[in-house]
Amino acid sequence: MRLAVIPGDGIGPEVVSEALKVLGEVAPTAEITNYDLGAARWHSTGELLPESVLGELRQHDAILLGAVGDPTVPSGILERGLLLRLRFELDHHVNLRPARLYPGVRGPLADAGEVDMVVVREGTEGPYTNNGGLLRKDTEHEVATEVSVNTAFGVRRVVADAFNRAEERPRKHLTLVHKTNVLEYAGSLWSRIVEEVSLEHPDVTVAYSHVDAATIHLVTDPSRFDVIVTDNLFGDIITDLAAAVTGGIGLAASGNLDITRRNPSMFEPVHGSAPDIAGQGLADPTAAVLSVSLLLDHLGHKEAARRIEASVAFDLATRDQASPGTTQAIGDRLAALVSSNVRNVS
Amino acid sequence: MRLAVIPGDGIGPEVVSEALKVLGEVAPTAEITNYDLGAARWHSTGELLPESVLGELRQHDAILLGAVGDPTVPSGILERGLLLRLRFELDHHVNLRPARLYPGVRGPLADAGEVDMVVVREGTEGPYTNNGGLLRKDTEHEVATEVSVNTAFGVRRVVADAFNRAEERPRKHLTLVHKTNVLEYAGSLWSRIVEEVSLEHPDVTVAYSHVDAATIHLVTDPSRFDVIVTDNLFGDIITDLAAAVTGGIGLAASGNLDITRRNPSMFEPVHGSAPDIAGQGLADPTAAVLSVSLLLDHLGHKEAARRIEASVAFDLATRDQASPGTTQAIGDRLAALVSSNVRNVS
Ligand SMILES: CC(C)[C@H](C(=O)O)[C@@H](O)C(=O)O
Ligand SMILES: CC(C)[C@H](C(=O)O)[C@@H](O)C(=O)O
Repeated sequence: MRLAVIPGDGIGPEVVSEALKVLGEVAPTAEITNYDLGAARWHSTGELLPESVLGELRQHDAILLGAVGDPTVPSGILERGLLLRLRFELDHHVNLRPARLYPGVRGPLADAGEVDMVVVREGTEGPYTNNGGLLRKDTEHEVATEVSVNTAFGVRRVVADAFNRAEERPRKHLTLVHKTNVLEYAGSLWSRIVEEVSLEHPDVTVAYSHVDAATIHLVTDPSRFDVIVTDNLFGDIITDLAAAVTGGIGLAASGNLDITRRNPSMFEPVHGSAPDIAGQGLADPTAAVLSVSLLLDHLGHKEAARRIEASVAFDLATRDQASPGTTQAIGDRLAALVSSNVRNVS
Repeated sequence: MRLAVIPGDGIGPEVVSEALKVLGEVAPTAEITNYDLGAARWHSTGELLPESVLGELRQHDAILLGAVGDPTVPSGILERGLLLRLRFELDHHVNLRPARLYPGVRGPLADAGEVDMVVVREGTEGPYTNNGGLLRKDTEHEVATEVSVNTAFGVRRVVADAFNRAEERPRKHLTLVHKTNVLEYAGSLWSRIVEEVSLEHPDVTVAYSHVDAATIHLVTDPSRFDVIVTDNLFGDIITDLAAAVTGGIGLAASGNLDITRRNPSMFEPVHGSAPDIAGQGLADPTAAVLSVSLLLDHLGHKEAARRIEASVAFDLATRDQASPGTTQAIGDRLAALVSSNVRNVS
């Protein structure tokens, strides 16, 4: 297994280091190459993602990313020039974001019920295409546009993936989240494709929710959701909310998948670089560890992936929620749990 | 006071009728004209909003709308052809949505703290301009676009309004909610205008939150927000979430304001037509009653507006939360509370 690691900024390196410790327990022979991309590199060289580095990244089986973003870099530079560029260049069309309320975890809801959903967020289209512009900038007649681009090709492949995932889950339920009553054109395309693909999955039940109503359901009745499929921007919004509802972005993992496997997929915690707590051992590495679990699952090491998730579940159920320990202490605990009962992957 | 009333569909007529009962207590001489727009009219005549009706509506001081939408009408028809058309034709650029957690009300959060915010949502631009299209429809090469249009003129007037409101509030705090790290062009325009207008309001503190992070804050720390200013779509999403957090859309009122007063403003509960519970006396008219309070406030009847809000606050603090009574019973209670201590408005 050849793994590229981008520790990134802020708490990125800390949480990645614990995640690799856990990975080491199941895949001791994994070849790991570090890439120093992020704020520091941009400051010293002006580079965000040089072509040569992108070429090297492509040679790996998967990428593990910590976090990018730093207050010393103008907003958007690292996000668009590094994180989104990786997602787009490597055709990460399925942005996979499970949200599960683990036993023992207290989220902000008084009565959440059992929450176990996965959001399949489109990753390479929608309003994320940097398609738009400024006209008459800095005048009173300025106009700024943003174009959301949605293609049948792009929508169909994520919708198909979402149905496949729904098919594998006990509840076999899929919800399209969109805003079809206002976004007539994109809404029409998404609705028609969900209807088409649903014909191939007669045992998956299908629901629809406007994105505004979905935020209500996520806080009043989150257990109604099983698989959600949605566009890039709605997915960005509702996965942060789903993460909050299931105990916070400290626990939320994600995979940026190229389902065709032509490019390496990239795994990252949903949280950002949290510069305010960086370097103090305060960050919870659980989201990064769960991202490693998604990575192993994607590469076919299902058993190892499940072990890591089970170890996380055990730790969350038994840890002192008020003081779960330092970044390193949590990593040590998880590594020990994983090592105590595991078969290595090749 | 000349008031146009559009009861609309589903629970619209029921809640409007209670709202007018309460209005009658403070403004017994108000002239009220009903307009039958909505699903029934569309079914029988194919009309959504005839020019002649629009012309008549313009002759009023304000409009009170119940709800539009019916399962027998294809999604989007009434929303775009009636509700959004009214907002756009009447230049309702400030979509005002207060979200307050009243004492006695239990929202879904275990520990919400004191929540008292107002969202100033842009109402006539953004992704709501029906600007986009379908290319190669029903082929595998189909492309659907949606264009978000943001103008300096349109953004400045809502940002100015939001700062004015922040100025009037004890905390004098304003948060711009956007997604500037991804939506580079619109984000740039919104950020620059907030910065510009903030110079005229040195005592208002300004914060920024990405829309995804804002949904997290709304469920983990909603009391941080005072005034939020945001675009049409982000505002749609976060106001539903804010309503849920403060006890549900059964309590959330809104005003669609033309700040210039060239056109009548329109007031409506945030909730929809809820056809599943229509006609059964199950709908809570509180959101409609609070919309009347916003209406009176907008027309300068500050004292009457405050009375109604205080009556609602009293009722919410003292009602049996589990069974607050029928639509009519709640309306009767609120009318009695208002009448018990009120000076009429002319
Ligand atoms: C950092 C930002 C560009 C990114 C996004 O919007 O996708 C983040 O919010 C996420 O969800 O991974
Ligand atoms: C019904 C719909 C068009 C509308 C909107 O999106 O604005 C509604 O959700 C609202 O918030 O008033």
